[in-house]
Amino acid sequence: MARPTLASLARELAVSRQTISNVLNAPHKVKPATRERIQAAIEAAGYRPSAAARQLRTQRSMNFGMRLLPATDGINGAVLDRFLHALTEAAQAAGYRLTLFCADSDSDEIRQYEELLDVAGLDGFILTSSTPDDVRTRWLQERGTPFAVFGRPWDAAGGLTAASHSWVDIDGAAGTEQAVRMLLAQGHSRIGFLGSYTGNPVGADRRRGWLRAMDAAGYGRDVPALSVEAEETVPGGASGAALLASRGATAIVCSSDSLALGAAEKLRELRPGTARPAVVGFDNTPVAAALGLSSVAQPVEEAARHMIRVLTHELAGDGTGAASNPPAAPPERQLLLAPHVVERVPLPLAATGSSPA
Amino acid sequence: MARPTLASLARELAVSRQTISNVLNAPHKVKPATRERIQAAIEAAGYRPSAAARQLRTQRSMNFGMRLLPATDGINGAVLDRFLHALTEAAQAAGYRLTLFCADSDSDEIRQYEELLDVAGLDGFILTSSTPDDVRTRWLQERGTPFAVFGRPWDAAGGLTAASHSWVDIDGAAGTEQAVRMLLAQGHSRIGFLGSYTGNPVGADRRRGWLRAMDAAGYGRDVPALSVEAEETVPGGASGAALLASRGATAIVCSSDSLALGAAEKLRELRPGTARPAVVGFDNTPVAAALGLSSVAQPVEEAARHMIRVLTHELAGDGTGAASNPPAAPPERQLLLAPHVVERVPLPLAATGSSPA
Repeated sequence: MARPTLASLARELAVSRQTISNVLNAPHKVKPATRERIQAAIEAAGYRPSAAARQLRTQRSMNFGMRLLPATDGINGAVLDRFLHALTEAAQAAGYRLTLFCADSDSDEIRQYEELLDVAGLDGFILTSSTPDDVRTRWLQERGTPFAVFGRPWDAAGGLTAASHSWVDIDGAAGTEQAVRMLLAQGHSRIGFLGSYTGNPVGADRRRGWLRAMDAAGYGRDVPALSVEAEETVPGGASGAALLASRGATAIVCSSDSLALGAAEKLRELRPGTARPAVVGFDNTPVAAALGLSSVAQPVEEAARHMIRVLTHELAGDGTGAASNPPAAPPERQLLLAPHVVERVPLPLAATGSSPA
Repeated sequence: MARPTLASLARELAVSRQTISNVLNAPHKVKPATRERIQAAIEAAGYRPSAAARQLRTQRSMNFGMRLLPATDGINGAVLDRFLHALTEAAQAAGYRLTLFCADSDSDEIRQYEELLDVAGLDGFILTSSTPDDVRTRWLQERGTPFAVFGRPWDAAGGLTAASHSWVDIDGAAGTEQAVRMLLAQGHSRIGFLGSYTGNPVGADRRRGWLRAMDAAGYGRDVPALSVEAEETVPGGASGAALLASRGATAIVCSSDSLALGAAEKLRELRPGTARPAVVGFDNTPVAAALGLSSVAQPVEEAARHMIRVLTHELAGDGTGAASNPPAAPPERQLLLAPHVVERVPLPLAATGSSPA
């Protein structure tokens, strides 16, 4: 069976194509009796105006673009995976699809924006990382393209700069601060920090929360010896933990689960026979859960849903009237979400095992 | 600066819009001198025909759809992540984009296909898992929509059925067979298999390779005791490994890295002081690499690139002439790729650690 078109439907109903188009897009222009007859025929025929035709008319593709960043070590990559799922679902629920693209660099990303706007007519972009003095956000703002960033607008020194664009981020410092307080409550006082933070605003932010909690607890003078910088990998975590252990650290707050995994392995090797070591990771990945490590959990699904709310609200309010029901209250355009520590009791795996069939 | 359009360009050059359209789509219809003048102007103006306009003309959206499956435990999920990256890159290199969508079930996936075809005009689909008696492939074939499946067309008993559609898969049995041979060469003879295989064609395939290699080595009669079924999780691996160890297994081939991680933890707990246990995982995830576990590596990037080749070839050959250079030889429409075992020497982490800064 051939798919019904505007033309075939007009022939069948003996009305003009414009009349059918009016029923779909400006029903108040059509007499009620005619409108009802045409609506019934549209439903019976299963006619749907194609996106291409609608796009030419409304200049809307109902599509957001997102650059798929190169795969990371795959341990903390699980977080981006959850973000992508939540984003696709939230976009779809709002009538939008998500188109992925690759880019070699930020400037290549801008070239891709240009092509996706000019050729595919995308409606907006999701940016999944922010960099100091971000050329991409400047380009998009100059062009007037709707976008939302997952990540704060950092300045070169790792501080927050004022920016007029929409962003959502997770308050990393609040997470590590909470992790330190948990370890203090467990009786630890020499609590180390392990992460990559020089020139890395996200790592510096996570270190800041550790510093704040150590200072508040009166351990500020131990801080220089207990802060170790390491490459964000499992071996980086192992060697960093060895250094921290040699300086008397009994617990470690890490800026990623990759680091935490390496640190836990190393502490177990250095102190055989102890229960799971007091190591807290960041991102609450499946690996941390599997190994019984405590970790700071980021509400990435909430961040993703908020970004879609911001984008769809912006598009609904631009005067083209493509979306008919803009929400009453605008969503916050700049939002810092609080993470929380998932505390895991260091039990041997045997206790949690399921029975084999 | 306003974006040049077909109309503005026609005005500027004092030619008809049809002439410009001919230069772009049917250059042989235009006199060489006129063609060169218009081509130069198109380049100078940076004019690009919009996708919406081109889509109405060619009925091509230059876009493939893929359902994003619900996130798995995130350990083996890293493989799907690599697949998604490779797919996006290969599609982009061929001029196509990848649009993601979510679905609650196979029948919901079909409803999404219908909408994506009717409304967004997608050109084809990537299916990332195959199920016995797959309703989705039947629907797509009846509709004549190009698609390629990552996964063999299984029958209900876990065997391979004949299917006329395009698919790519990894020969899991060849991978586990190779893993057993590696363990035999290391001196093991009581080699267990740990996986989920009843009603799971992928697990059954991986078990088949283990069986084949054990039979070939003359250990066929040990096979019933050494095959243990477990839930594909870390705790499932731990409890399955405990059972296999109680039956005298000295090495274990697992059908996933989640299982291998649990099995390795358990064996280390049961035999303190031993080097890394002889456990082989499947998927060669970052977790296996981080923990020094051997694992079967799947060439998912190659699979992704091949699927894009198959789809773009099919679209190039459908007579609409949208792609002008179909490759000389058609790509294989049904392809089984060989995995390989990544052997890791069980060294303590300390030896591989990098120096902290």
